[in-house]
Amino acid sequence: MSTATTVREQVLQAGPPELRRLFREGALVRPTSGLAPGYVQANLVVLPREQAFDFLLFCQRNPRPCPLIEVVEAGAVEPAASAPGADLSRDLAKYRVYERGELAAEPDSVADLWSEDMVSFLLGCSFTFEDALIGAGIRLPHVEQGRNVAMFITSVETTPAGVFSGPLVVSMRAVPHDRVVRAVQVTSRFPSVHGAPVHVGDPGAIGIPDVSKPDLGDPVEVGEGEAPVFWACGVTPQAVAMRSKPPLMITHSPGYMFITDLRNEDMAVI
Amino acid sequence: MSTATTVREQVLQAGPPELRRLFREGALVRPTSGLAPGYVQANLVVLPREQAFDFLLFCQRNPRPCPLIEVVEAGAVEPAASAPGADLSRDLAKYRVYERGELAAEPDSVADLWSEDMVSFLLGCSFTFEDALIGAGIRLPHVEQGRNVAMFITSVETTPAGVFSGPLVVSMRAVPHDRVVRAVQVTSRFPSVHGAPVHVGDPGAIGIPDVSKPDLGDPVEVGEGEAPVFWACGVTPQAVAMRSKPPLMITHSPGYMFITDLRNEDMAVI
Repeated sequence: MSTATTVREQVLQAGPPELRRLFREGALVRPTSGLAPGYVQANLVVLPREQAFDFLLFCQRNPRPCPLIEVVEAGAVEPAASAPGADLSRDLAKYRVYERGELAAEPDSVADLWSEDMVSFLLGCSFTFEDALIGAGIRLPHVEQGRNVAMFITSVETTPAGVFSGPLVVSMRAVPHDRVVRAVQVTSRFPSVHGAPVHVGDPGAIGIPDVSKPDLGDPVEVGEGEAPVFWACGVTPQAVAMRSKPPLMITHSPGYMFITDLRNEDMAVI
Repeated sequence: MSTATTVREQVLQAGPPELRRLFREGALVRPTSGLAPGYVQANLVVLPREQAFDFLLFCQRNPRPCPLIEVVEAGAVEPAASAPGADLSRDLAKYRVYERGELAAEPDSVADLWSEDMVSFLLGCSFTFEDALIGAGIRLPHVEQGRNVAMFITSVETTPAGVFSGPLVVSMRAVPHDRVVRAVQVTSRFPSVHGAPVHVGDPGAIGIPDVSKPDLGDPVEVGEGEAPVFWACGVTPQAVAMRSKPPLMITHSPGYMFITDLRNEDMAVI
């Protein structure tokens, strides 16, 4: 057995704390899709205290695109509720650093940028409800093919809060007509990770002119006998936060999520 | 038909905007239990901007006792999402004003106290899930008898946020053993109005020495063949906010809730 195989198997069997340690030590740099199955992965947004109240309010008003898993006080790096002992400034494989809304760097640690002024937000990500869809027997070609989900900027406005406003971004999955109701049901159990779809059917009704041409991510075909189903997307809060051009904003790098100790089933309301 | 009867009938048939107008004009002063059936009533907490981020964070961390329905920006009086056109400073029948944690007044309007510094929080109240329990055929003697629900200060600590911390306060309802599962199910649909119970059964497990002696409200008998079931209570955020002794805090007067335009069913996640 080659060393590479051993490392690969070790990674695929690793739990959240072990994976976070590998990311922290720089021993592993890869997208987190497929890692730590059954555990909740989260989007990270770190903002100066000045913007934090408005952003928290924005999330409260727009729970579907901005489902809060945890908010960590200014200056602290440990998400005590979702990953005790973790360090948000070092435990992700790759970060993005934005200065006044412009991408400035993509480092593997932001420990040197952390200050008493930074408030961290962990937001639910689609992996959790996609697990529920797959569990309900609904095929997700983009997951099978290791591609990115198709995302669209809609004509639906989020509810503004202070300096934050902007359009709702959605992800689209093609669901067979006879599985649409089940898709609504199984994802409704998980309101803290985007939850129920925001729209089923006609893309034009939410301002999408061509469902085969996503604004972000990879195109997905909507086949004969399938309906396009749209869920609020975690790209929304990042896009909205960026538009406010805070002096400093830190996020995860797309696909390189924060892995929590929470289980997907912990997120279910019923 | 006497004038009194006419007014009484008018009140019992009035919708939320009409009731708010009667409260605003001082034409009606009464507890809101039983009014505008089917519509969501809310707890009100108004705090200075200085405390608002920590309180919003406290609510986010403690969604069962502090289910946010709407947060209104500093200085604004209109809850645009839950009651467009309403005025939070005048549309409740009775308010409480606290200065540094001490009750200072119980006026029928706080318009003169409103300032650019005050942030308003509307929090879900138990009336919504009690409607769901009654709809599921579970009798609630305190509702039938027009008495207050039995409330207890538990040994369970809330998750602190900034200056806010304190014990969880729960309300108790006696549920027949064969209806306990149904009670959990029907209230789970409403996470934004306290949702599922926090505890079923042994009161001692959450630090309640004698279930016949509530800390607040009226005693309720737990009969033969019944289990005490405990829900997180909206008194929790008020008690916690008061402990922080903000210079000024405004709340509704107990039982005199804010009546929103939202329907109870709008609160259901599934």
